[in-house]
Amino acid sequence: MRITKRAAAIAPSMTLEITAKAKQMKNQGISVVSFGAGEPDFNTPEPILFAAQQAMEQGFTKYTPASGMPELKQAIAEKLKRENGLEYTADQIVVSNGAKHSLYNVMQAIVEDGDEVIIPAPYWLTYPELVKLCNGVVVSVTTRVENDFKITAEEFEGAITSKTKAIILNSPNNPTGAVYSKEELYSLAEIAIKHNVFVISDEIYEKLIYDGKEHVSIATHSAEMKDLTIIINGMSKAFSMTGWRIGYLAAPLDIVAGINSIQSHETSNPCSVAQAASVAAFHMDDNFIKEMRNVFDDRRIYAINRIRAIKGLDCLVPQGAFYIMVNVSAFYGKTVDGITINGSLSFAKAMLNRGVAVIPGEPFEADDYVRLSYAIDKAEIEIGLDRIEKFANEVL
Amino acid sequence: MRITKRAAAIAPSMTLEITAKAKQMKNQGISVVSFGAGEPDFNTPEPILFAAQQAMEQGFTKYTPASGMPELKQAIAEKLKRENGLEYTADQIVVSNGAKHSLYNVMQAIVEDGDEVIIPAPYWLTYPELVKLCNGVVVSVTTRVENDFKITAEEFEGAITSKTKAIILNSPNNPTGAVYSKEELYSLAEIAIKHNVFVISDEIYEKLIYDGKEHVSIATHSAEMKDLTIIINGMSKAFSMTGWRIGYLAAPLDIVAGINSIQSHETSNPCSVAQAASVAAFHMDDNFIKEMRNVFDDRRIYAINRIRAIKGLDCLVPQGAFYIMVNVSAFYGKTVDGITINGSLSFAKAMLNRGVAVIPGEPFEADDYVRLSYAIDKAEIEIGLDRIEKFANEVL
Repeated sequence: MRITKRAAAIAPSMTLEITAKAKQMKNQGISVVSFGAGEPDFNTPEPILFAAQQAMEQGFTKYTPASGMPELKQAIAEKLKRENGLEYTADQIVVSNGAKHSLYNVMQAIVEDGDEVIIPAPYWLTYPELVKLCNGVVVSVTTRVENDFKITAEEFEGAITSKTKAIILNSPNNPTGAVYSKEELYSLAEIAIKHNVFVISDEIYEKLIYDGKEHVSIATHSAEMKDLTIIINGMSKAFSMTGWRIGYLAAPLDIVAGINSIQSHETSNPCSVAQAASVAAFHMDDNFIKEMRNVFDDRRIYAINRIRAIKGLDCLVPQGAFYIMVNVSAFYGKTVDGITINGSLSFAKAMLNRGVAVIPGEPFEADDYVRLSYAIDKAEIEIGLDRIEKFANEVL
Repeated sequence: MRITKRAAAIAPSMTLEITAKAKQMKNQGISVVSFGAGEPDFNTPEPILFAAQQAMEQGFTKYTPASGMPELKQAIAEKLKRENGLEYTADQIVVSNGAKHSLYNVMQAIVEDGDEVIIPAPYWLTYPELVKLCNGVVVSVTTRVENDFKITAEEFEGAITSKTKAIILNSPNNPTGAVYSKEELYSLAEIAIKHNVFVISDEIYEKLIYDGKEHVSIATHSAEMKDLTIIINGMSKAFSMTGWRIGYLAAPLDIVAGINSIQSHETSNPCSVAQAASVAAFHMDDNFIKEMRNVFDDRRIYAINRIRAIKGLDCLVPQGAFYIMVNVSAFYGKTVDGITINGSLSFAKAMLNRGVAVIPGEPFEADDYVRLSYAIDKAEIEIGLDRIEKFANEVL
């Protein structure tokens, strides 16, 4: 083997097989409803496109500072103040090639060989890979469905050892849709401060939140907590800018210095045109976000009601993001079309044969579940759920 | 210290002090000619901007495959065939956020803890940092001015140990402007094959080449060499697209698999709009590149003739890129304006006081030299060299 242990240790995507087969079926003209979407099905708003075009015309196609153009860092600092009640200076912001990239850089900057990082499960499958890429140790903590899959202060404290460097919190959560309340976050903050553990707070879904819930950043707890928090966010989900790849983080200056060093040699600046586009996003009113959220909310309620009415299926009410975790364990033990369903992966395979692609929960450490995204047309959701209902009625 | 050893080990930029002071002086209204430019002073060509705009209008603002959109990978494979005589399939290409990012990913994919990477000096200062970031060991090999700063087969072989994983070759070279001939490359290829050492071939300056020289990729040597070569290239220098951040690499499939795994979790796809713009670049005729090269060539010849006529200065004739390495060691031992000049850094400081910013060679392991970029207006070059000439006449 000519590649490094770190490259070889990365889990091959277990969902790739499903996705590839779904694509193949579609190419063959077979109707497949895909619940796999991980990005809003909205166009990037016009003012953002206009700003990108202006930037190009004005020759803004050269290097910017590696950590991002000053205007964007300033706009992000103002956003954090205005929307999250957090005081950061522009030099505490690092703009990157997407929130994923910010997460990667944080890990490289704070996780030493053998350091432990706590990840509440179910989790977004990239988190553990990022820990492994810097020779860290993944400590996954299984959360309970009774707690809406949210880690409690006791569970958090129980997982801490002398090697614990950080915990990754993700609220609103992918894949569960759970949203942590202020009280929940603050009780976690007490533990983090007590044990001097960093909180990597992935807030990328903050704008996609329902049922009157409010997004809170754990850094608002106290100055001590803020000094242990790295806030991760980006343009992708709030402004439907997934392809542009602009993320950012806010952190204490010593951490930022380490991240800047790494980023300057690893990638240098994110795309200048995409950065200029992002500045415009922060100067928009919030009509776009409101409209997008309303559309998502309508689909969410429709899908939940349908799912709960289908034999054998169950789900919690996700209060954020655009995913529903559906418990499909009632199907385990059944054999359909020659496939014995004994977990989320085989359920997904069997369901794909009936024209519906879902994301198995196994790689999220949630093998009783599959993840359905409602970032697709409502009409598609209806057809897909019709097929799942027919399948359930036949199999159970 | 709360950051990792790997983050702390990165050398703080020794040129930063110069750059920061030059900027401060300019802000104070002081005239400073900056020879520090690392990017072409041309606009990105219109057809590329037009393609970016079209992509935006058509909603091409979503995720692409992490390794790049198929059309771009195909266009790159065709370019390698057409211009470099190399057969790669599209799935042997990985598109990234710039050539620097491709270099980072290669290191992470092939350099294990303690593996040695040979870097001929003088070198681009990011190379050793990339090796350190994956816990590799930098083995720098000082090249000789008599050989135009090109590493010889003997020097290469002499540096190989049982821990050697790769050598980084950069032709045309930053900072020296040296261009390796086919014979020189092929003699290095023999050594690489004999000792099973990877060649990371950074060809980012391939289009900026003068005096009728021809760019050759070492991978053309043989199938064996191609199986040990990772070609690094990008849009920045050839198409004046530095800010867009699109680079790429071509490599054997096993290496590509490792890099794809890393990139999918580290950053995922580069900016979709910048990728679409890059496709258009490959469909342009080469008038833009020819014109840019002619302008650079004219400045290059002017600057060389001027430099050689200045007391105490000397330089080789750079045959590629847009840099000139100027030997300033005749100034060492002199004291000017209270600054004792004892190396490239103090020379650069003293020269900055006289309104000229140059890049010291010390961080390139070439402390007798400073680097002058001619990617600036010829009129600026003239003013800057006038000031250097006045300085030399006064000091020597």
